[in-house]
Amino acid sequence: MSRICVLRLGHRVVRDQRITTHLALVARAYGADEIVITGERDDKLLESIRKVVERWGGRFEASYSNRWKEMIKDWRRRGGAIIHLTMYGVNLPEIIKEIRRIWRDGRDIMIIVGGEKVPGEVFQLADYNVAISNQPHSEVAALATFLDWLQGGRELKKEFPNAKLKVIPQRKGKKVLYLNRRRIT
Amino acid sequence: MSRICVLRLGHRVVRDQRITTHLALVARAYGADEIVITGERDDKLLESIRKVVERWGGRFEASYSNRWKEMIKDWRRRGGAIIHLTMYGVNLPEIIKEIRRIWRDGRDIMIIVGGEKVPGEVFQLADYNVAISNQPHSEVAALATFLDWLQGGRELKKEFPNAKLKVIPQRKGKKVLYLNRRRIT
Repeated sequence: MSRICVLRLGHRVVRDQRITTHLALVARAYGADEIVITGERDDKLLESIRKVVERWGGRFEASYSNRWKEMIKDWRRRGGAIIHLTMYGVNLPEIIKEIRRIWRDGRDIMIIVGGEKVPGEVFQLADYNVAISNQPHSEVAALATFLDWLQGGRELKKEFPNAKLKVIPQRKGKKVLYLNRRRIT
Repeated sequence: MSRICVLRLGHRVVRDQRITTHLALVARAYGADEIVITGERDDKLLESIRKVVERWGGRFEASYSNRWKEMIKDWRRRGGAIIHLTMYGVNLPEIIKEIRRIWRDGRDIMIIVGGEKVPGEVFQLADYNVAISNQPHSEVAALATFLDWLQGGRELKKEFPNAKLKVIPQRKGKKVLYLNRRRIT
């Protein structure tokens, strides 16, 4: 099974804290394997993501790197494909079939999600610059929709092993199963 | 054509500014007709959304209300359906067909998106409590995925009339058409 890595560029501790947290949680919930965050180092944010993984299960990894360019080049060297999400790219419906084919052929996928200012180089380093509509909106929504289309919606039914908490879906109200009550913090 | 309204509950000016902005932009880009924001009044935020509409086109409306309960009840009285997005609800793939049927039958759809603490009453007032996976992630992603599934992806090709700016999709780089240069601010 090929791997999906999200690369979040240019994180700023104060301004981007919630957006980057949302990106990480979306990456996990929508079936990516890991997120690598670049920009300002933010250990509190990494810790909060790890706590979510501990409680809600799965093997999602979050880490920091200050070497995004090398990471991208390494990814390509090892045969992975690089997708950059940007409103200036080719609209998702026009390109998704080609990307799905690559993914099903077993190539790893790196998804680059920019911050406010993305270096022009990123557009050149990417194999595909993909827009989720060519309208301004949100990198969180863009990541969710890309992952959803790539996996054809199957990610929404993903099971997360070793969870301590599990929601039991309800028509009205909330129900959460505590799978090992003693270990909840 | 039936109407899609997003109701954002419990906005807080400082803490939620970016998330609510993202919600509004996603609502617009993914084909909703309007967003109504409740909680703390935030005229700067409304103004920034209106500027996006002015530049990028379409007829999307953003407004503030402090009467969310009456709004929901009014919506129902006029025959509209009410969807509340929550990780505790029924998972999207299990319920989307039923909701699509309602929408295609011409009923208006209100989508409620909560903040940190959603009053328990909202779960009761909604016709459907819908989860986008039962995992914790992001209200921005949840809104995007719900709108995308409701409209079967057609929203990503939506045209926005009277735009001053228009992206011309590129495989590499950026290209923006200025449709009436003199009016750009």
